[in-house]
Amino acid sequence: MTTHALPGSSDLHHPEACTIGVDFGTLSGRAVVVRVRDGAELGSAVHEYRHAVVEDHLPSTGAPLPPDWALQHPEDWLDVLRTAVPAALAEAGIRPTRVIGIATDFTACTVLPTTPDGTPLALTPEWAARPHAWPKLWKHHAAQDQADRINALAHARSEKWIARYGGRISAEWQYAKALQVLEEDPAVYAACARWIEAADWIVWQLTGTESRNTCTAGYKGIHQDGAYPSPDFLARLHPGFADFPATRLEHPLSPLGSRVGGLSGRAAHWTGLPEGIAVAAGNVDAHVAAPAAGAVENGRMLAIMGTSTCHVLNGASLAEVPGICGVVDGGIVDGAYGYEAGQSAVGDIFAWWLRQGVPDHYRTEAAAAGEDLHQLLTRKAADQPVGAHGLVALDWMNGNRSTLVDHHLSGVVAGLTLDTRPEDVYRALLESTAYGTRTIVEAFEDGGVPVEEFIVTGGLKKNALLMQIHADVLRRPVSLGTSEQGPALGSAIHAAVAAGAHPDVRSAAAAMGGVRRHAYVPDPARADAYDALFREYRALHDHFGTGADLLLHRLRRIRNAARTATGG
Amino acid sequence: MTTHALPGSSDLHHPEACTIGVDFGTLSGRAVVVRVRDGAELGSAVHEYRHAVVEDHLPSTGAPLPPDWALQHPEDWLDVLRTAVPAALAEAGIRPTRVIGIATDFTACTVLPTTPDGTPLALTPEWAARPHAWPKLWKHHAAQDQADRINALAHARSEKWIARYGGRISAEWQYAKALQVLEEDPAVYAACARWIEAADWIVWQLTGTESRNTCTAGYKGIHQDGAYPSPDFLARLHPGFADFPATRLEHPLSPLGSRVGGLSGRAAHWTGLPEGIAVAAGNVDAHVAAPAAGAVENGRMLAIMGTSTCHVLNGASLAEVPGICGVVDGGIVDGAYGYEAGQSAVGDIFAWWLRQGVPDHYRTEAAAAGEDLHQLLTRKAADQPVGAHGLVALDWMNGNRSTLVDHHLSGVVAGLTLDTRPEDVYRALLESTAYGTRTIVEAFEDGGVPVEEFIVTGGLKKNALLMQIHADVLRRPVSLGTSEQGPALGSAIHAAVAAGAHPDVRSAAAAMGGVRRHAYVPDPARADAYDALFREYRALHDHFGTGADLLLHRLRRIRNAARTATGG
Repeated sequence: MTTHALPGSSDLHHPEACTIGVDFGTLSGRAVVVRVRDGAELGSAVHEYRHAVVEDHLPSTGAPLPPDWALQHPEDWLDVLRTAVPAALAEAGIRPTRVIGIATDFTACTVLPTTPDGTPLALTPEWAARPHAWPKLWKHHAAQDQADRINALAHARSEKWIARYGGRISAEWQYAKALQVLEEDPAVYAACARWIEAADWIVWQLTGTESRNTCTAGYKGIHQDGAYPSPDFLARLHPGFADFPATRLEHPLSPLGSRVGGLSGRAAHWTGLPEGIAVAAGNVDAHVAAPAAGAVENGRMLAIMGTSTCHVLNGASLAEVPGICGVVDGGIVDGAYGYEAGQSAVGDIFAWWLRQGVPDHYRTEAAAAGEDLHQLLTRKAADQPVGAHGLVALDWMNGNRSTLVDHHLSGVVAGLTLDTRPEDVYRALLESTAYGTRTIVEAFEDGGVPVEEFIVTGGLKKNALLMQIHADVLRRPVSLGTSEQGPALGSAIHAAVAAGAHPDVRSAAAAMGGVRRHAYVPDPARADAYDALFREYRALHDHFGTGADLLLHRLRRIRNAARTATGG
Repeated sequence: MTTHALPGSSDLHHPEACTIGVDFGTLSGRAVVVRVRDGAELGSAVHEYRHAVVEDHLPSTGAPLPPDWALQHPEDWLDVLRTAVPAALAEAGIRPTRVIGIATDFTACTVLPTTPDGTPLALTPEWAARPHAWPKLWKHHAAQDQADRINALAHARSEKWIARYGGRISAEWQYAKALQVLEEDPAVYAACARWIEAADWIVWQLTGTESRNTCTAGYKGIHQDGAYPSPDFLARLHPGFADFPATRLEHPLSPLGSRVGGLSGRAAHWTGLPEGIAVAAGNVDAHVAAPAAGAVENGRMLAIMGTSTCHVLNGASLAEVPGICGVVDGGIVDGAYGYEAGQSAVGDIFAWWLRQGVPDHYRTEAAAAGEDLHQLLTRKAADQPVGAHGLVALDWMNGNRSTLVDHHLSGVVAGLTLDTRPEDVYRALLESTAYGTRTIVEAFEDGGVPVEEFIVTGGLKKNALLMQIHADVLRRPVSLGTSEQGPALGSAIHAAVAAGAHPDVRSAAAAMGGVRRHAYVPDPARADAYDALFREYRALHDHFGTGADLLLHRLRRIRNAARTATGG
């Protein structure tokens, strides 16, 4: 450790003082070095996870995984600390002693079982061969049955907390996933000493001690009004589940932006950062982005648009909005009710369509124009009048997170004809995600949570057609977060607060974040045309998404039975 | 004409006597030379239409065409006589004097306005610039409004003939298309002396005199029980329409297989055939194929599967089956009630999917294996268990001909997920066409017309996966017509009857046609799995295809309005 600065040697008030924000995404982790006084991004680096999303085969044994599973490898996350943080520092060209703090954010609910000291069961020789020992990525969708039973029981018992989650707990969250482990591999469940969000696990790796943050505990862990669900409730799901929070979750919660410890010597060695600098409480990639994009004031909805989209929004009062992901007091920033909603796939849907392929001459044309295929299809789709492709799609290729909260739904495209072209479907898919967003915005407003501004950050904000479609479909301006590093910058802001360089997240956001207001404005004629198409989207949405006997659910059951019967 | 044999020089009873069958398809015409005694196909040739399907711009002026239009160029048809017939003769290596007759079949309802002498208005200087002067191809779908009004009025007046057409006249047929001309371009309608099926027009070109066949008059011209619809009925659609059949259709009808004249000197010059040989009455490509594939006996359904599919079936008695295209006494063969149904797109749907493109590495893989992309996707799709792709599609990318008779419907794909692959959609599309076929088969059986055998001919019979899927979905064996030239061979059989070499179509079919019985048999387990998926297809079918307020109709209206507003 002798190559690192001693604890406390960093100067909080140095004009060039910096923090590090590290954003753990679905396929990669990104580190950014940010100047505390003005938010200048001095350097950044990305590390792609070597195992990416583990969907087909278990890394340890190569055994095939069932349908709807999605795991990750903890070593991939540690590699981000070992490679992206030093690389970002190098790109910034600053001395490590200028760094006064580090904060992280993570996909959620990405959750794993560990030993008492935080070692992932997946990395132990005893358990590595068991699929349920591995971290379940947010988009692991195989616990829908468990979620359905949790929801049914919560409504049957009129549990107060269920309304805080839009009336439905997601299959993606801590309880559904943990109950799946208990029911499908009780030995792994018994060996699980701590059931912990990756958001908190990575902080444990940085500090050497366990902490739990208010954000994931509230949104993903059903922690409301100071308590987890009762043992009595949980026992009705499974007798062995009654003590689940008491034994595997319970720990004091740390507010967002708080310092939960100093950087350990081991983590200092990994990262090249000074030992002992402030490490902030864990956070979720969506929520942490709000201060980076000027979205901490009440009524400013931030959509973090990438492979999927999360919507975060602060409100002055507590409202129970059907179909949203959740509301947590202080879940985004202290002193406000933080609301969350989301779309399970957005950029993933456009990428899926490109994976179906494009005609050969499109490839030639894109190469000649120096464009990628997304750019080519966007350009070809951009000029057509609204409605001219004749299509409406449901954006459920990865299920529906809000407002139906149902991961056994799937995508639908209607209106196909023999003259439908690849760019027509592409545009219809862009539009479908805007209709999904409008459904969420309307749910908030109908539920009493005003949406006064719509701000976008994340990788998709660079797609001008997609942004304009959102402005037209929502019939409101679209503002853009100025940073290219939304979540990572947000983490750096939280690190600045944890280090004491700014008094709170709001003031740090004012100094370090940025937004380009009304970058896109709606066109009234296009907005009118989209009103008509949105009605058709809603007709499809209601037909396929609600009701007791769902065709898409039946197709999913048929599919899974067919795949399971043949081992693949 | 001195280079040609004199009339009557051909010897009917020569052991090597041949006939020519010419099949006019959607994109090309095919001529085949067939030996009369045993059906041996001695030579064939194809001519691709230079103008193919005219959908975007009028050939004469380049003016853009509205949505849903589909025209053809009469010169393309004459080119088939000028090029494919001599080429087939050359390939056969026989002396032209061995040819004793010629017969033709055509897509239907493909229909055109002509002068009194049969000159297409499209080929006259006065009218060539008017879109409505051009032949309307069968898949011209812009007369749906006219068809809807014809159907509503027919039901309101309880016209007896409407039940013969499954309760609905198609927008593809003579009256809807003619009424569209009258309403949209009355001058063209006034200049139209004869409104004639291309099937009869091409025979006029061969013989020099007009004739009309019982098949198209019955199925497409609403000729039932010896009469066309009444002037009173027609006047209620439009005052100027009252005398439509009397002035533009009326002509004695020729039975199928009858000799309507001798080959004219002009046509002998075009084709290289002897002047004066028998020319048979016109026929429809689907119906003419029945004798080529052993499908003239009652209860044998023949599916002619290509870009679209026609189903023809003879029955002993008259039944009124909802949703079928029509029933005509002697419409396929004398002495039986000929039933017709159809699917507006089949192979066209698979080709459409390939036009969306495939991944680059699929192209590489296909090239390495020496396969075309259809073969590649078929191979990749073939091994998956039934239902494993999780998809159900509606095969309506070109509307629905039977049993909904609605060309404003469009395709739907449901069950899409981020792991849906191109071969999954491809297989779902193959299956959707089999579900469409099953819907038709069940309509016949429910309507009292037994289907005892299912026989396939046409280009798609070579797709083994598609054939096996049909066997499994229908839960009955699939037999195959042995000829690769189904309709053209059928025409040659009719030519042999017209020339007098066989006494009637049944005996000519026995000598010249062929079928491979039960080439594919159903697998009970797969058939069970498909029963479950067919229920989902029917759920989609009923939701999107029936009812008063159809989402797909609204999408079509929005699409057409958007396209028309911008001239494209």
